Amino acid sequence: MTRTVLSSPTKEVAIGFDQPFCIIGERINPTGRKKLAEQMRAGDYSMVEADALAQVAAGAMMLDVNAGIPLADEPRILAESIELVQSLVDVPLSIDSSIIDALERGLSVYQGKPLVNSVTGEEESMERVLPLVAKHGAAVVAISNDETGISTDPDVRYAVAKKIVERAADHGIPRDDVVVDPLVMPIGAMGDAGQQAFRILRRLREELKVNTTCGASNISFGLPNRHAVNAHFLSMAACAGMTSAIMNPLHKEEMDGIRAANMLNGVDPDCRAWLAANREPGSADGDDRRAAREQRRRRRAPG
Amino acid sequence: MTRTVLSSPTKEVAIGFDQPFCIIGERINPTGRKKLAEQMRAGDYSMVEADALAQVAAGAMMLDVNAGIPLADEPRILAESIELVQSLVDVPLSIDSSIIDALERGLSVYQGKPLVNSVTGEEESMERVLPLVAKHGAAVVAISNDETGISTDPDVRYAVAKKIVERAADHGIPRDDVVVDPLVMPIGAMGDAGQQAFRILRRLREELKVNTTCGASNISFGLPNRHAVNAHFLSMAACAGMTSAIMNPLHKEEMDGIRAANMLNGVDPDCRAWLAANREPGSADGDDRRAAREQRRRRRAPG
Repeated sequence: MTRTVLSSPTKEVAIGFDQPFCIIGERINPTGRKKLAEQMRAGDYSMVEADALAQVAAGAMMLDVNAGIPLADEPRILAESIELVQSLVDVPLSIDSSIIDALERGLSVYQGKPLVNSVTGEEESMERVLPLVAKHGAAVVAISNDETGISTDPDVRYAVAKKIVERAADHGIPRDDVVVDPLVMPIGAMGDAGQQAFRILRRLREELKVNTTCGASNISFGLPNRHAVNAHFLSMAACAGMTSAIMNPLHKEEMDGIRAANMLNGVDPDCRAWLAANREPGSADGDDRRAAREQRRRRRAPG
Repeated sequence: MTRTVLSSPTKEVAIGFDQPFCIIGERINPTGRKKLAEQMRAGDYSMVEADALAQVAAGAMMLDVNAGIPLADEPRILAESIELVQSLVDVPLSIDSSIIDALERGLSVYQGKPLVNSVTGEEESMERVLPLVAKHGAAVVAISNDETGISTDPDVRYAVAKKIVERAADHGIPRDDVVVDPLVMPIGAMGDAGQQAFRILRRLREELKVNTTCGASNISFGLPNRHAVNAHFLSMAACAGMTSAIMNPLHKEEMDGIRAANMLNGVDPDCRAWLAANREPGSADGDDRRAAREQRRRRRAPG
């Protein structure tokens, strides 16, 4: 039974076929967030702090930390962000950069066993990232593209993933420590993006027997009612075998999708997590809605 | 490519692997609806009429019609309901009864090719229902239980379904005209109900190559936030291969699930149905929500 075990100094989290779906919070990422980028560049981590706390409170089981700001000192900012986040929350982190020096600095300050995000099937990426992952005893996200780009054939993407898993083994990284990202395309631009993703996810689980992840919100790019698309993509992908996602845990629709999928996939014993989440105020449960209406009614009533 | 084609005098609907998921409206059913039962017994079909129109307006592609009222003249009431519903809407119907005389009366008045709901794997059921289905050139829902009850082993349920498909063939009913209901159990009572359903649905599609259906809301029996559970069960089951469901089309969450699943399963070309459904007012799209807020704000403003 495949398990990728990540850790902080005080907490272990396992991504695995027999585990609840692993929610990796995506928010600490300055890409497309101008204000966050400006703050991080200036050494102000107040938004990083708020994002870390809010995501864990909302149910994130790990946090992705990215400091990709053009022309900034990414290695330093990434390391400082990681140290800060580890001082605030106890979930394991995913160290996210395309710059090898930044990954190295991040790994050098990280306490525990992190996920390194990411290596691709390109020779240069494999030969630079995998030794670093091995040296630090980390796990790694393997993105299924290579020098030829991202294939539209899911079987080619599967083959790239297999190549990375084999190369990781050459470096002493076990299969359990490679989490494959099959690359999810926007359904609005590519009509078979969903089918492609489900097909490769099934093969990755049943044949290659690896854990999987993806940037979930990409699927709904450009569409209306994105949260519903993301939520159903997540539960369907979980049904096809996906075991984690880098996603926004602050949206109820997506979290409902993950929690329902856990229950229906048999990894929420006695529906405990579902019941707990849906007893909270603000849930879509009928009783809670009635209670909320009642509360609003009282608030409006003359004091 | 498996297709079950049903018809009314003016409309054909296909349930199939390459078709949008077939939404069969469940509302015309007096079970647990005391007022509807009283009306139908008294020959008052005003609720039947309202339910027929509302479900089709909400997106039902077929309607199930059931007249199971204890100690009432079910054959007559079922036939009258079918005649009324066929005069109001043009979608094909599912004629739903466990009483052979009621199925016979319903079939005798039905115009077009209906779905007969249902036959089980019990000898008596197969030998009484299948000749009737064959005689009228109808299609049939095959429920995967037999004299021994409902097995908790999905492979036994698969075997029962296979037996019914083979017996149907003996009666001249092609495999394309048998829609298997694998029997979905409440997840709150049986923790592996979801996994069981997904496993049998995959086998029914890939090995037996038949269309499938189920009463979707059973999965969430007894749980809070039922609509979210139903919605994600539906999209996950569609991902596992299910091609139709007997369900309530009046709930937005479930309909979002079906529409998202169609898009992600590649049976909503260019996301057309998704875009159309989410341009309507009251959708969960951000723009629409903003518009709704704006409208509320204006309404509150002094005139």
